[in-house]
Amino acid sequence: MKTISGGVCAPKGFSAGGIRCGIKPTSQKKDLALIYSRKPCSAAAMFTANKVKAASIQVSRKNIEDGALRAIIVNSGNANACTGGEGLAAAERMAQLAADALSIDSSDVAVASTGVIGVQLPINLIADNIGALKACLREDQNGHSDALTAIMTTDTRKKEIAIEIELDGKPARIGAMAKGSGMIHPNMATMLAFITTDAAIDRGALDFCLRGAVKRSFNRLTVDGDTSTNDMVLVMANGEAGNFTINIEQRTENKEQLTEKKEKSNFEIFNEALEFVCVEIAKMMARDGEGATKLVTVKVSGAFCEDTAASLAKSVAGSSLVKAACFGSDANWGRVLCAMGYSGADFTPEKAGVSFISRAGSVEVCRDGQNVSFSEEKAKKILSEEEIEICISLKDGMGEASAWGCDLTYDYVKINGDYRS
Amino acid sequence: MKTISGGVCAPKGFSAGGIRCGIKPTSQKKDLALIYSRKPCSAAAMFTANKVKAASIQVSRKNIEDGALRAIIVNSGNANACTGGEGLAAAERMAQLAADALSIDSSDVAVASTGVIGVQLPINLIADNIGALKACLREDQNGHSDALTAIMTTDTRKKEIAIEIELDGKPARIGAMAKGSGMIHPNMATMLAFITTDAAIDRGALDFCLRGAVKRSFNRLTVDGDTSTNDMVLVMANGEAGNFTINIEQRTENKEQLTEKKEKSNFEIFNEALEFVCVEIAKMMARDGEGATKLVTVKVSGAFCEDTAASLAKSVAGSSLVKAACFGSDANWGRVLCAMGYSGADFTPEKAGVSFISRAGSVEVCRDGQNVSFSEEKAKKILSEEEIEICISLKDGMGEASAWGCDLTYDYVKINGDYRS
Repeated sequence: MKTISGGVCAPKGFSAGGIRCGIKPTSQKKDLALIYSRKPCSAAAMFTANKVKAASIQVSRKNIEDGALRAIIVNSGNANACTGGEGLAAAERMAQLAADALSIDSSDVAVASTGVIGVQLPINLIADNIGALKACLREDQNGHSDALTAIMTTDTRKKEIAIEIELDGKPARIGAMAKGSGMIHPNMATMLAFITTDAAIDRGALDFCLRGAVKRSFNRLTVDGDTSTNDMVLVMANGEAGNFTINIEQRTENKEQLTEKKEKSNFEIFNEALEFVCVEIAKMMARDGEGATKLVTVKVSGAFCEDTAASLAKSVAGSSLVKAACFGSDANWGRVLCAMGYSGADFTPEKAGVSFISRAGSVEVCRDGQNVSFSEEKAKKILSEEEIEICISLKDGMGEASAWGCDLTYDYVKINGDYRS
Repeated sequence: MKTISGGVCAPKGFSAGGIRCGIKPTSQKKDLALIYSRKPCSAAAMFTANKVKAASIQVSRKNIEDGALRAIIVNSGNANACTGGEGLAAAERMAQLAADALSIDSSDVAVASTGVIGVQLPINLIADNIGALKACLREDQNGHSDALTAIMTTDTRKKEIAIEIELDGKPARIGAMAKGSGMIHPNMATMLAFITTDAAIDRGALDFCLRGAVKRSFNRLTVDGDTSTNDMVLVMANGEAGNFTINIEQRTENKEQLTEKKEKSNFEIFNEALEFVCVEIAKMMARDGEGATKLVTVKVSGAFCEDTAASLAKSVAGSSLVKAACFGSDANWGRVLCAMGYSGADFTPEKAGVSFISRAGSVEVCRDGQNVSFSEEKAKKILSEEEIEICISLKDGMGEASAWGCDLTYDYVKINGDYRS
């Protein structure tokens, strides 16, 4: 597996583009994006668990029901959520406009929106510019870069990645782009992420792999505990790599078998690669949390099981007090134990250990649930880095998991105090 | 029911006091408090649900098991949490020191601590000053005021109240004092609150009333989603008002019966009064949330049931994005619906209405799940007040509940970025 350039356009047969159509009224930023595959794709998606669902979620969910897609149209600047029947009609028209421009069926188009809630989507701006959007589709650097720019809102960093793997001796690629900085929290689908691949994989296997990857990446990410009405993760696979189609039968059921096997099946190669892509994108999101100055990784090991480890890690990464302490480079391990304590997950506090790690070094601050004498100066230096790790070791079992978050800063408050204006 | 002065010393037979013994090393603030009843009390308490429990919680839980108490000793500046066997021994000694000074049994003393986690409690400072602490006990203004000052940490306001009710034609009083601004969240016992009353009430009835009152007050309060290892709510009733002892048999089971009855039973009078006291203290805490500039009340009506209404109200009051919008006086009702959507509670988004209310007026911003045209200027004026109300009306049923929170400000981050230093 190697990292390559090209983002969502790295896999063969995908093109992308982004333009400004005017949905963002007060800026000159791009706000409309398109991703397109010249061949039909198998597709899978996960949508927000929020009970209030944007119109785009309703339309995309319907269109992906048959496991097939060829295009994704995305606007930023307007969430088209809480917009009733008029909003739903607008989202349906958005799919139809893209379909007509690309001469494909509207049921092969997914729709995504991000921005302010409760304002009707100015669909005519999209209608007026759909030709220009189609015309800007590119398979090169411009394509994925323009599309990515057009889906960003308060994001301060571009979030994309592409990797290459080998399937049946042939190169296959996975590319991804994403937006999202505020409103990111576990178990709620979290943000917009679009993944393309030229691997040949059927919809059942693709769906299985996506669910596992999202569980271990986006669902272990927390920025502010709020989750959006609009979030989705979507993957399209067009098969142009030419490998034998991956299916769920190739899956090795348990870890022991996996270790015994000499060679990984294509299913496992693809599954691991997709998880890697999702984890990398999730980390980019955590690092770009609204107002964030630090990427905080919380690693839990020795828990009763993986789910317990994940609950503990997420609770620590999501604690406002831990996040504020990270901002202040304060080695306040009591807050770490406290956040584990209210997570609802089972563990033995008297056996818990905590260390802080960064490239400036490592310091143990808690052993067996109690204070360890440590240098405050050294701890401060370690926690002053831009990437810090809170390492929690338990003695309850073999479960381990990581969660990602960021610090809580003045700028978070500033950004969210008056977002609409 | 009328409000009176005197705090925890308002009920007959209670005295209180507070001194500085040196647990807070870098300030000259008081850090040790005592509340004492000259007669034996029936008592009830609720403790933190955090899996990591401070030594004081363990000792107090044990000592209240028989439903009887006479004194509470409290220190601030050190949580005595994550301190192992040494910490537990210190908490036990703290109870014993108070018991010896007051010539009562140590099993009649509750212990509470608040402050930094993971540092051993300097119990010798308490031993050295226990005589002075006993000597400062007063039944007057000084007593409750000194005790209250001694339990405060990052609190910026004093939180106390006293009321008078009539039981069997005799005046009875309930007094309360509390500390807590950060680390306050529903369902986790939330903070330190000590309630005294001279009403005669048996332990079963007292326990029942406390649980109901906490459910509708402290457990509907949210400041930052974190919950402490140390929190407790405790009530002592010494019976000096001379009413016939209230018991659970006097309880009217359902609301219909209650409406039909001409006169409330003493049980109901006391129950309502205790809930009133707890709600007022909870609101004081929300208003004093770390860095808070505004008290935010979220009222939900028309939900399927009270629990559903409470879940929705708490989710909105606890949303970082809603809180930041309140700070910015931004009428961002989309975030309100969004927070309801991820609460896990059932409701019909298409029937939801939202209004913002303060003494500057009222503005409807959402009806039937969609935007209502409103004056942004007027909304801004309403939301600029220090007390604002987010009113959510549903059409699902008769359930209603309120939750209390505060805005999220720059100062929250500042206070918590480096609390230990």
